Amino acid sequence: MWGGRFSEATDAFVAEFTASVNFDKRLYRHDIQGSIAHATMLARAGVLTEAERDAIIEGLTAIRADIESGNFEWRVDLEDVHMNIESRLTDRIGITGKKLHTGRSRNDQVATDIRLYLRDEIDFLLGEVRRLQTGLLDLAEREAHTIMPGFTHLQTAQPVTFGHHLLAWFEMMVRDGERLADCRKRVNRLPLGSAALAGTTYPIDRAYTAELLGFEAVCENSLDAVSDRDFAIEFCAAAALTVTHLSRMSEELILWNSQQFKFVDIPDRFCTGSSIMPQKKNPDVPELVRGKSGRVNGHLISLLTLMKGQPLAYNKDNQEDKEPLFDAIDTLKGCLRAFADMVPALKPNRESMREAALRGFATATDLADYLVKRGTAFRDAHEIVGKAVAYGVQTGKDLGAMTLDELRQFSDTIQQDVFDVLSLEGSVNARNHIGGTAPNQVLAAVARARVRIG
Amino acid sequence: MWGGRFSEATDAFVAEFTASVNFDKRLYRHDIQGSIAHATMLARAGVLTEAERDAIIEGLTAIRADIESGNFEWRVDLEDVHMNIESRLTDRIGITGKKLHTGRSRNDQVATDIRLYLRDEIDFLLGEVRRLQTGLLDLAEREAHTIMPGFTHLQTAQPVTFGHHLLAWFEMMVRDGERLADCRKRVNRLPLGSAALAGTTYPIDRAYTAELLGFEAVCENSLDAVSDRDFAIEFCAAAALTVTHLSRMSEELILWNSQQFKFVDIPDRFCTGSSIMPQKKNPDVPELVRGKSGRVNGHLISLLTLMKGQPLAYNKDNQEDKEPLFDAIDTLKGCLRAFADMVPALKPNRESMREAALRGFATATDLADYLVKRGTAFRDAHEIVGKAVAYGVQTGKDLGAMTLDELRQFSDTIQQDVFDVLSLEGSVNARNHIGGTAPNQVLAAVARARVRIG
Amino acid sequence: MWGGRFSEATDAFVAEFTASVNFDKRLYRHDIQGSIAHATMLARAGVLTEAERDAIIEGLTAIRADIESGNFEWRVDLEDVHMNIESRLTDRIGITGKKLHTGRSRNDQVATDIRLYLRDEIDFLLGEVRRLQTGLLDLAEREAHTIMPGFTHLQTAQPVTFGHHLLAWFEMMVRDGERLADCRKRVNRLPLGSAALAGTTYPIDRAYTAELLGFEAVCENSLDAVSDRDFAIEFCAAAALTVTHLSRMSEELILWNSQQFKFVDIPDRFCTGSSIMPQKKNPDVPELVRGKSGRVNGHLISLLTLMKGQPLAYNKDNQEDKEPLFDAIDTLKGCLRAFADMVPALKPNRESMREAALRGFATATDLADYLVKRGTAFRDAHEIVGKAVAYGVQTGKDLGAMTLDELRQFSDTIQQDVFDVLSLEGSVNARNHIGGTAPNQVLAAVARARVRIG
Amino acid sequence: MWGGRFSEATDAFVAEFTASVNFDKRLYRHDIQGSIAHATMLARAGVLTEAERDAIIEGLTAIRADIESGNFEWRVDLEDVHMNIESRLTDRIGITGKKLHTGRSRNDQVATDIRLYLRDEIDFLLGEVRRLQTGLLDLAEREAHTIMPGFTHLQTAQPVTFGHHLLAWFEMMVRDGERLADCRKRVNRLPLGSAALAGTTYPIDRAYTAELLGFEAVCENSLDAVSDRDFAIEFCAAAALTVTHLSRMSEELILWNSQQFKFVDIPDRFCTGSSIMPQKKNPDVPELVRGKSGRVNGHLISLLTLMKGQPLAYNKDNQEDKEPLFDAIDTLKGCLRAFADMVPALKPNRESMREAALRGFATATDLADYLVKRGTAFRDAHEIVGKAVAYGVQTGKDLGAMTLDELRQFSDTIQQDVFDVLSLEGSVNARNHIGGTAPNQVLAAVARARVRIG
Repeated sequence: MWGGRFSEATDAFVAEFTASVNFDKRLYRHDIQGSIAHATMLARAGVLTEAERDAIIEGLTAIRADIESGNFEWRVDLEDVHMNIESRLTDRIGITGKKLHTGRSRNDQVATDIRLYLRDEIDFLLGEVRRLQTGLLDLAEREAHTIMPGFTHLQTAQPVTFGHHLLAWFEMMVRDGERLADCRKRVNRLPLGSAALAGTTYPIDRAYTAELLGFEAVCENSLDAVSDRDFAIEFCAAAALTVTHLSRMSEELILWNSQQFKFVDIPDRFCTGSSIMPQKKNPDVPELVRGKSGRVNGHLISLLTLMKGQPLAYNKDNQEDKEPLFDAIDTLKGCLRAFADMVPALKPNRESMREAALRGFATATDLADYLVKRGTAFRDAHEIVGKAVAYGVQTGKDLGAMTLDELRQFSDTIQQDVFDVLSLEGSVNARNHIGGTAPNQVLAAVARARVRIG
Repeated sequence: MWGGRFSEATDAFVAEFTASVNFDKRLYRHDIQGSIAHATMLARAGVLTEAERDAIIEGLTAIRADIESGNFEWRVDLEDVHMNIESRLTDRIGITGKKLHTGRSRNDQVATDIRLYLRDEIDFLLGEVRRLQTGLLDLAEREAHTIMPGFTHLQTAQPVTFGHHLLAWFEMMVRDGERLADCRKRVNRLPLGSAALAGTTYPIDRAYTAELLGFEAVCENSLDAVSDRDFAIEFCAAAALTVTHLSRMSEELILWNSQQFKFVDIPDRFCTGSSIMPQKKNPDVPELVRGKSGRVNGHLISLLTLMKGQPLAYNKDNQEDKEPLFDAIDTLKGCLRAFADMVPALKPNRESMREAALRGFATATDLADYLVKRGTAFRDAHEIVGKAVAYGVQTGKDLGAMTLDELRQFSDTIQQDVFDVLSLEGSVNARNHIGGTAPNQVLAAVARARVRIG
Repeated sequence: MWGGRFSEATDAFVAEFTASVNFDKRLYRHDIQGSIAHATMLARAGVLTEAERDAIIEGLTAIRADIESGNFEWRVDLEDVHMNIESRLTDRIGITGKKLHTGRSRNDQVATDIRLYLRDEIDFLLGEVRRLQTGLLDLAEREAHTIMPGFTHLQTAQPVTFGHHLLAWFEMMVRDGERLADCRKRVNRLPLGSAALAGTTYPIDRAYTAELLGFEAVCENSLDAVSDRDFAIEFCAAAALTVTHLSRMSEELILWNSQQFKFVDIPDRFCTGSSIMPQKKNPDVPELVRGKSGRVNGHLISLLTLMKGQPLAYNKDNQEDKEPLFDAIDTLKGCLRAFADMVPALKPNRESMREAALRGFATATDLADYLVKRGTAFRDAHEIVGKAVAYGVQTGKDLGAMTLDELRQFSDTIQQDVFDVLSLEGSVNARNHIGGTAPNQVLAAVARARVRIG
Repeated sequence: MWGGRFSEATDAFVAEFTASVNFDKRLYRHDIQGSIAHATMLARAGVLTEAERDAIIEGLTAIRADIESGNFEWRVDLEDVHMNIESRLTDRIGITGKKLHTGRSRNDQVATDIRLYLRDEIDFLLGEVRRLQTGLLDLAEREAHTIMPGFTHLQTAQPVTFGHHLLAWFEMMVRDGERLADCRKRVNRLPLGSAALAGTTYPIDRAYTAELLGFEAVCENSLDAVSDRDFAIEFCAAAALTVTHLSRMSEELILWNSQQFKFVDIPDRFCTGSSIMPQKKNPDVPELVRGKSGRVNGHLISLLTLMKGQPLAYNKDNQEDKEPLFDAIDTLKGCLRAFADMVPALKPNRESMREAALRGFATATDLADYLVKRGTAFRDAHEIVGKAVAYGVQTGKDLGAMTLDELRQFSDTIQQDVFDVLSLEGSVNARNHIGGTAPNQVLAAVARARVRIG
């Protein structure tokens, strides 16, 4: 490819060390898509004849079919996906194949390929996000009245509804979807036409190529276009946050599925057993997802480190952009799929949740609020309830299980109606505003959410 | 604050270890802003009287003045900015001060404070981005015709205009600005009203509070609202990418300012000398900015790790969100300011750039294109030029410095008109399409860019 | 300091942006220690007179006292700790103060200071590791016979002793101590004498300086010595792993302290309450430690990114080494102290642990082993026990709670003696080899461990 | 494998999502090595008969041969390398194959396999480090007298010898080798015998297994042994630092190989050209190595994040330890090989280095030292030389190119002998102490270094 100036052949190990075809071949479909658009533009610009264009498109279409049917030998000595396809094209259609590369270089070609590829993957991922969201909404609606302990610091805090908890997960995914969509805007711009770094001397029409490929705009500067990898970094940042959210949901599922919590049962088909311990049913899926969050964080750091301090324009370093990006995509796809499949199958154990909510003094705040509304200063009410809780710890009784006399030891403001606020239903129903845990708020939130995700 | 249930005082070291006031006091202005809105809403909802509201607002306003004039003693035993201010309020206006906390908790309060604070900082940063962009456009316009070698792999590739190179920097900043603006949308939502985790039993009006504080929407779920730190992570991701861009510009400035390149002189006021070596003038500012990119990457990782696997809702871990976020903001502000101040003062050395462009066979591609346009197959043209370059390496002559006879050793297609394409001006002018390096394209791009940044 | 070559003063913002005294002043003691050794060496080498040496040492000693008594004004315009001290020295003792800097530069000086400082901090940290280890051993010995459920996948797996579990924590700390000690070897080498980058023309005696400062060796190459920051990175890597271990212990403490587990009670003095929820007692210390693991990971990445791609020798980037290192040290000190203080005060709830171990079919493996030892193939035994467990899940009975007849439904190999292996004590006692959970193994391991930590 | 307790088959996607055989099959050789030792120990302990042991060993040996000759079908439904091999063993030798798993579980088995594998890889890497070091020493010896400009802040600072510069690289590799060796100590301990988490009820002899496998010690605690992944993290930290060093060397090679520096020529066989620009010869190898530093940083973060907050003992998350570790090993091997191959082939351009050293006022410090040794106060000397440099900048003359009269404009202390110190040789020879840049120090350092690396 570049014989003239060189006095010796590339070292065999160096050839292998610097080749990318083993991982960039997954771009073949987008490489061909970009080449067809480029040829179409060149023909309209008069650089190719219509016959040349047609030969190129026919050749590329046949190559795509060969690759998809497994009849394509990828060659490491041809370095990358681009040269493998171009070389085969020339084998097929002769010297016209070489003309395809007019007015472009591999620097702008690879940037175009990755953007096309990533755009498709983002679209797929947005669908998976929506699938998971739908599963969450369905479950939240079904469990709008189910009461469980709400935790802060993993200590029982206040009763909440399980539907409300699931909607917290839903909101995380909303932001994740927004971030992917924002990222897509910046992915969806055309670098082609930047050539090696400075543009080309051929009379190209970049707006037309952009239109053919569905790009929203062209990259405005050729030096930037061949060296920019922001889109990969921004995607990995969005992916890292999404998998971090899934790791949080995973942590909760693992806790809830333990013998100590017993809040949720994960169906057998999402679990595995132990070859040694016959009783084991392990929540492998959430554990693995929790573990995979590290992986995407790592890829994000790889890419940020990669770009740090690189002078313009293209440097070979940039070849290292692909594997982290590809694995981040694959990881996110796997994790979302696992959750979207599993969430609708979760079996809440309403009884256990309710029992747990009855322990741990979950309605202590309600008792304090009760006293405040009857004229006690909040600081005093807090102290009174604190003492009642200390009594409860000693005697093993939760607040709702104490008699009126027991409660009145701490304040004679307390009357029979206190048991309304000490009940779980009373507690959750009272948090009746947008964003609150009351069942009717949960149902209203589900209805709004269905509209939001379309 | 929470005496009733406890049987012993907090350990002195633990009190210090868990206190946050030393770093969260910088939120004081936004804490007071949020509290004033909360009190205003509570009064409209009938939870506070108008007199109580006024006393609270007056008290908070006075406290803000005290803090700003240095008459406020921050106490570690009061843990955080919220309790410090609330405690002082109660000292000032008595028991009414305690009522301010009705219907909220520190969990939703701190989330509100950080969002208000971060929103202000983003707005400031967007201004700094624009200031740097303007400096770049002015310089690019001035240097639209200055020719320098364009590099790939830090090897001379093709001539480019210096203005074009600066516009590549401009484009990076465009994306950075877009990301900050996208992040701002997700920052600008109101968590207040979520209380500890489940909402509150008081008749609050969250939409009104949001309106008072200029938030675009309320957070839709209370559990999510008190535990969500996406905004801090997303901001740090955007900041990391921005500082990575600045580190790339820094690398180039450091290279350009070296005795080997001599492309750009950085004014003395942005440099420092050496206490030992009297000749030294060091490009400290770009070096320090390049170094600071690691810092923001680190904060991003801190925050992602922080949230990994956290169950809902608020956990004490989240207190660790502030220092990384604050330092990322400060770092980004410092780096942007340094660049926005320095860029307009850069002194390009046009002569050195031109000389460098005349070395390194920068117009070799133009020669190949010349041959192709005259009918030589590209592969053959590439080989011919490669041999001419090898000859030039041996004889120490660049292509433009060879005689016509010397050039014709390699192909008799070459005629006298070849020297038009071997000239630097010929080369850059020929790359005449949107995104290309031709001076008139640079000027057009500057004009478009001025419209884009408003 | 470097007037001659410069034509304008440093920009005010640049001066502030590039100054380090606000954070490097904490090195003052080690800066003075290094300077005293340097002056002593210079005097022996004949570069300083004895009188000059004595004046310098006396001056520096007085400055140290001033700093420690708060009578020292740190000036940002003097950039860093070195120039602040040197400037004050010259104020005090006149022109002789300037001679101290003979044969060194700030490049080797700062590297020496940090190494001295870090060496001291490592020694302190090793003491804290040992203090925590001792607390773990004492508690493990006390709880050698306490039985709890051992978990894999947070599912009950097999009974273990609580002492055994604590020894797992101990082993993590053993490796952490080893890594710190290994790191210390590489910290403990002398860069001084490298001067700016190439060594000095003065007749210095580096071995003597090394001896005076207790360094094990001199750095062998001056260019490397002024640019190397491996020690900071290696320390942060060791610190990140240690805090990761503490975050694992924290996670367990948080779980064990929940209403669902109730395995361990953390004394009130290590917890805080809620200003809203009167019943709350939150495990703040382990939560905060868990959160802080992100912080140290972040600093590690900051430093690795910082050094990436830096050419030799010293660059201003390196000034960014200090804040991450200092905060990593402070964080590790805080976390270790919190744990070393808290662990001896933990109150295990033996009853709850035992009850939990009796649920979840913890002895299922023992039943399978029982069958295998009586001739059943393991695969068959596994199947038999799996079915017994499925029966137990349906009927709500653990294996040890079933009658012999119930058990014999699944295999008539089972006899009355099965209840020995189904007992918790039988199970743990049977794992009787080095590293196993049997109480006598735990006691033996504690005894060995006491010897190991000296 | 675990039918009894389960009521439905594993979901097909979950089976694939949770399987590890696609990446853990590379452990096959160490899995078999560990199994052979385990069987040998079980036979000596009387758990297996000698005939069973022999059948197992024979079977495993045959399987290893099958794998190595490509006659082994890896099955994803068998999850991992362990079950694939065990299943094949049972196919081959019948029910005896199942007995191999007596007294162990996959939890301790996989930990053993990785440790054996990593130990071998570390040994190989240590050899590669030594190979690179030897190349550096040979080149340093050859270039002990070659003078180049030494840089700080990428500004010419003082002349240094190229050999000295190469020894700075050598020192980095010394520390890298030490860290790998330190890590190896902690890798080289036996987890086997920990079984699932608590040890086993069989009469195993762990010390004997350790001896058979060449482990220095047994892991002291079974819970720790199955959950510990410190070795992978510590290895990645050491690898990240090593690749960071290689990225620094790469940066320098890329600079030195540019048209602007021209200090070093990288042979054609380590470079590639451009398909577009016929003159290009790109330093792909150092660029790619520089890029790969991000990758290893990323893996380190992946693993640290993975372990953060994991409760004991084994969790499925840990399956995510392998891919980052494997890729870190592969990356480090590739980068070290590339450098060890390339360094001996580098062609220094002594003429260019010398010319560069003559520019940039490299001997300004020597002139200041000259004045100080003749009685001028250092501060005054610094000022004098600064002015001479300013004059040189204006007139385009370096210090050594000025006449005596020109120099004496700034100080009449200057005499004819000043030209000795302004010469490059005078400058480097004067830095004549351990670690200094003088050629005889470089040669002495090479001699010492050859002894150090054995």
